[in-house]
Amino acid sequence: MDDLLRQVRDGRPRAIARLISLVENSETAAETAVTALYPHTGQAHVIGITGPPGAGKSTLVNELAKAFRRLDQPVGIIAVDPSSPFTGGALLGDRVRMRDLAGDRGIFIRSMASRGNLGGLAEATAAVIKILDAAGYPVILVETVGAGQAEVDIATMAHTTLVIEAPGMGDDIQTFKAGILEIADVLVVNKADRPGADRTIKSLELMLHLGAGPAVGHHGRLPAEAASEPLIADEVWSVPVQPTTAVNGEGIPELVDVIQRHWRYLQSSSNWLAKEKIRSRREMERLLQARLLRQLRVSVSLDLQEALITAVAAREMDPYTAVAHLFAKLSP
Amino acid sequence: MDDLLRQVRDGRPRAIARLISLVENSETAAETAVTALYPHTGQAHVIGITGPPGAGKSTLVNELAKAFRRLDQPVGIIAVDPSSPFTGGALLGDRVRMRDLAGDRGIFIRSMASRGNLGGLAEATAAVIKILDAAGYPVILVETVGAGQAEVDIATMAHTTLVIEAPGMGDDIQTFKAGILEIADVLVVNKADRPGADRTIKSLELMLHLGAGPAVGHHGRLPAEAASEPLIADEVWSVPVQPTTAVNGEGIPELVDVIQRHWRYLQSSSNWLAKEKIRSRREMERLLQARLLRQLRVSVSLDLQEALITAVAAREMDPYTAVAHLFAKLSP
Repeated sequence: MDDLLRQVRDGRPRAIARLISLVENSETAAETAVTALYPHTGQAHVIGITGPPGAGKSTLVNELAKAFRRLDQPVGIIAVDPSSPFTGGALLGDRVRMRDLAGDRGIFIRSMASRGNLGGLAEATAAVIKILDAAGYPVILVETVGAGQAEVDIATMAHTTLVIEAPGMGDDIQTFKAGILEIADVLVVNKADRPGADRTIKSLELMLHLGAGPAVGHHGRLPAEAASEPLIADEVWSVPVQPTTAVNGEGIPELVDVIQRHWRYLQSSSNWLAKEKIRSRREMERLLQARLLRQLRVSVSLDLQEALITAVAAREMDPYTAVAHLFAKLSP
Repeated sequence: MDDLLRQVRDGRPRAIARLISLVENSETAAETAVTALYPHTGQAHVIGITGPPGAGKSTLVNELAKAFRRLDQPVGIIAVDPSSPFTGGALLGDRVRMRDLAGDRGIFIRSMASRGNLGGLAEATAAVIKILDAAGYPVILVETVGAGQAEVDIATMAHTTLVIEAPGMGDDIQTFKAGILEIADVLVVNKADRPGADRTIKSLELMLHLGAGPAVGHHGRLPAEAASEPLIADEVWSVPVQPTTAVNGEGIPELVDVIQRHWRYLQSSSNWLAKEKIRSRREMERLLQARLLRQLRVSVSLDLQEALITAVAAREMDPYTAVAHLFAKLSP
């Protein structure tokens, strides 16, 4: 493992790929890797990219990667694709991309599919981000498919979260996606050459305007207690709406500018430490829960777990009492 | 408290409202109430209703409530509305509904808004469902706004989950909502009198067809290990697509039929205990995590928490080591 970690820090792609496979398949490996690599992380700009499949997200991620490569920045790409009967196809996505970006040693691409549960996926993604960070990729693009918790989790991992939209989605939809708009640092209207793009841009701007609340607006989902250091109100990032047409590269340089401006904003702002602490607290909460569940597997026999669950399902025992039994068995 | 709980079991609306307020504001009250009422629960059919705001969900919930009332069934309605700069308005929703359903003592309506964090909201909602169940409401409608974790959490609480769509949302959208389709036991296309309704119904049916995988298709998100008792393959519920026009009541009796058919399917099926156990396990996991966080607040000083978070944010300590410190402080 030591040798592998050294090779990862030297940026050797095969070592990186091997370590990621280890980390995906074992919580212990993730712990070992992150513990060892953590002091060497914190250099990368982690950029989350999310939005509906039809919005042209993968093309946009490709174009962003190429744009950062033109700036001589090595780029790591993590495509998070929770396995689903309706989505799937992580490998195919990789292959399409591989063809386009193949042969560029400054690009590392990895698709991750859900292994059993979403918590595990978030865990593994957090570890892979750290691996690529420690391996020396200054730009890490994390792409998520679909809606829901995965997006929110990634927003807490990414420094800059792009939410991609496309014209031709009704007004209803934009309301529907309110929860996703809240995690955006930058809104991208892709396929901006299509009819209706202006209307989409205008309604997004309107929504942002309506939603503009106090200070922490775009990270409003975090529990109030998390912001132990108050964010400073006059240093609020105003979420821009950036049009792009990824298929022909239009708007991409401007988008890169916006992304870099957000990065400079984060770093120069006195909010930096406060935001890093929010991120750290989130990660620690996730790890603590994972650890609790692991401890549970170790300390409480499957038979007892099964007996308690059955008793609760049969209304013979209430869930609080059952949980008290479980909790008593945990000896940290 | 004992007196209050007795009045709740007698179905007194004012006592129910008071207990819900207590439960919303205190985890201890939730524990006391659920522990006491749990043996009297398990009678109600819990129906989750979710979908985008534009789909006419509230009107549909109203019409459903009236339809169940015509069958002489008391109905409890819980509207879950995570506070958001973009949504809000739980109270207004109540008032609109109140006007329509006012004076019917067989209907109890409660709106719940997020108090700080989504975990707390799921917790409180689970407790309120049990209160209404123990108070004797045989039908409980739980309405959620927006997309994301709230829907998934509710799907694990509800016996029957309706996902409401409306015509006029592009094809992209339907792909986008794949994650939400997965939680549906019944798909409702509301505003079915609008142009494009047929197309929406057809594309939903196509998606359901494409997504039809092995046995547990529509609950595919649950971790494999949760299904400790395997679901039986030849007793699979085939998700129907039901058109409605809630504003004039069209399709509502048919929807009620479908809902009741799903309820009978659940009860007659040998999957019943397996599904109850999945629900119980989920609830216990949620309670265990809540308990862990509470224990953390009690056992670890804020100063130490703050010091660890700061050390992680400053890369002076890795998150696994920090979590090990926290975990060691927990004495269950």
